[in-house]
Amino acid sequence: MKANFIHTYVSVDCVVFGFDDNQLNILLVQRKEGKADSKDLKLPGSLIYDEEDVDDAAHRVLYDLTGIKKMSLKQFRCFASPDRASNPDDRKWLDKAYQPNINRLITVAYLSLCKVDRKLTNVSKYKSSKWCPLSDVPQLPFDHNKIVDESLAEIRKWVEVEPSIVFELLPNKFTISQLHRLYEAIYNKKIDIRNFHKKIAAMSYVIALSEKQRDVAHRAARYYKFDKVIYNKRKTTIQ
Amino acid sequence: MKANFIHTYVSVDCVVFGFDDNQLNILLVQRKEGKADSKDLKLPGSLIYDEEDVDDAAHRVLYDLTGIKKMSLKQFRCFASPDRASNPDDRKWLDKAYQPNINRLITVAYLSLCKVDRKLTNVSKYKSSKWCPLSDVPQLPFDHNKIVDESLAEIRKWVEVEPSIVFELLPNKFTISQLHRLYEAIYNKKIDIRNFHKKIAAMSYVIALSEKQRDVAHRAARYYKFDKVIYNKRKTTIQ
Repeated sequence: MKANFIHTYVSVDCVVFGFDDNQLNILLVQRKEGKADSKDLKLPGSLIYDEEDVDDAAHRVLYDLTGIKKMSLKQFRCFASPDRASNPDDRKWLDKAYQPNINRLITVAYLSLCKVDRKLTNVSKYKSSKWCPLSDVPQLPFDHNKIVDESLAEIRKWVEVEPSIVFELLPNKFTISQLHRLYEAIYNKKIDIRNFHKKIAAMSYVIALSEKQRDVAHRAARYYKFDKVIYNKRKTTIQ
Repeated sequence: MKANFIHTYVSVDCVVFGFDDNQLNILLVQRKEGKADSKDLKLPGSLIYDEEDVDDAAHRVLYDLTGIKKMSLKQFRCFASPDRASNPDDRKWLDKAYQPNINRLITVAYLSLCKVDRKLTNVSKYKSSKWCPLSDVPQLPFDHNKIVDESLAEIRKWVEVEPSIVFELLPNKFTISQLHRLYEAIYNKKIDIRNFHKKIAAMSYVIALSEKQRDVAHRAARYYKFDKVIYNKRKTTIQ
């Protein structure tokens, strides 16, 4: 191995999760202009600016893409394989989108969470964005498929350390059935509904409302809400 | 903000924790040769090589510094503040240690764990290394004090997700009292010993041995060991 210290370009890439009541989705952007093409999707990202920290760059990317100011954002890993930007197509795109002869590009990956029904105001350089079911993510450029794969493991760890984050994926009022489907989607496995009810009963911050569903064919289910105040009090009593 | 995409040098820095039976320590290296000087200590680190991933760079730094092949290593955060390498002393050292005119340096920080009584074989460019109590870490160059501060929060999260890692800081045979002191050191607070005994009793992978301490002034305490096989079985039954 050569002890050769090269300079490098640094980017951020964001895996934005949404839940559409059945499955997890991630937000992808279209690399080139023109007709949507599944071969041309990628994670939203950007090279970092001269005077910009990586966290600020990730916030900028998300704000430009969604118009949402306060999104939960969590840095989860730096991806720096020496050959992650070696595909000729990817290099060609880099040359055009940024500048020629980027000889090495490492990226810092972020997780974010968004309600899928939020109206997004996209002023980024990417002309269009779309929610893509996690089970149906196409081949992406660079190592973006690897980043997506690792992000799912990461969101599970995040839920364990900070259980409140699941509620950022749900409407403000939700049914236990919705919450159950979300947990199943996050863990990608069936979760016994009776055990799940016990788990929820132990969450003092999941509050039953008097309101129930309306105009549904099945028996109307009760709505619940997440209570941040109770949640935060609970956090301080751990250990 | 200028949309100016600069190239950057990328380094890794490692926060290696050890536990000396009373408190957490971290491994620091001396930047310059000559007599040890607390003003001249830093976290062990290196710029990444041309064909090297960041994880490989962190492994290289730790192996060169300790001679230990298998150390638990966890990437925890990229530190990229634009002014993190702006101190003139730090720039002078960079010029000398690497190459002149490094205009921006970001670093990827790693956590690692080591038994403090392990013999370390240092073949790194740093002439000497020393364990420094966490409560007594001097002013360090760059943003290394910030990295150390954040690493403690990170080790707590790591313990929650992966409780087995605490045992990498203890001798193979340990007393409950040692384990208790280690938890107190990690969480930096008193932990009620009776509650702690309950907590340990629930850890099926902490196994009582028939052996007890010898030649101690107080009542000899029983030794325990960590059973990795039981621990790994347990992990697969979560959820």
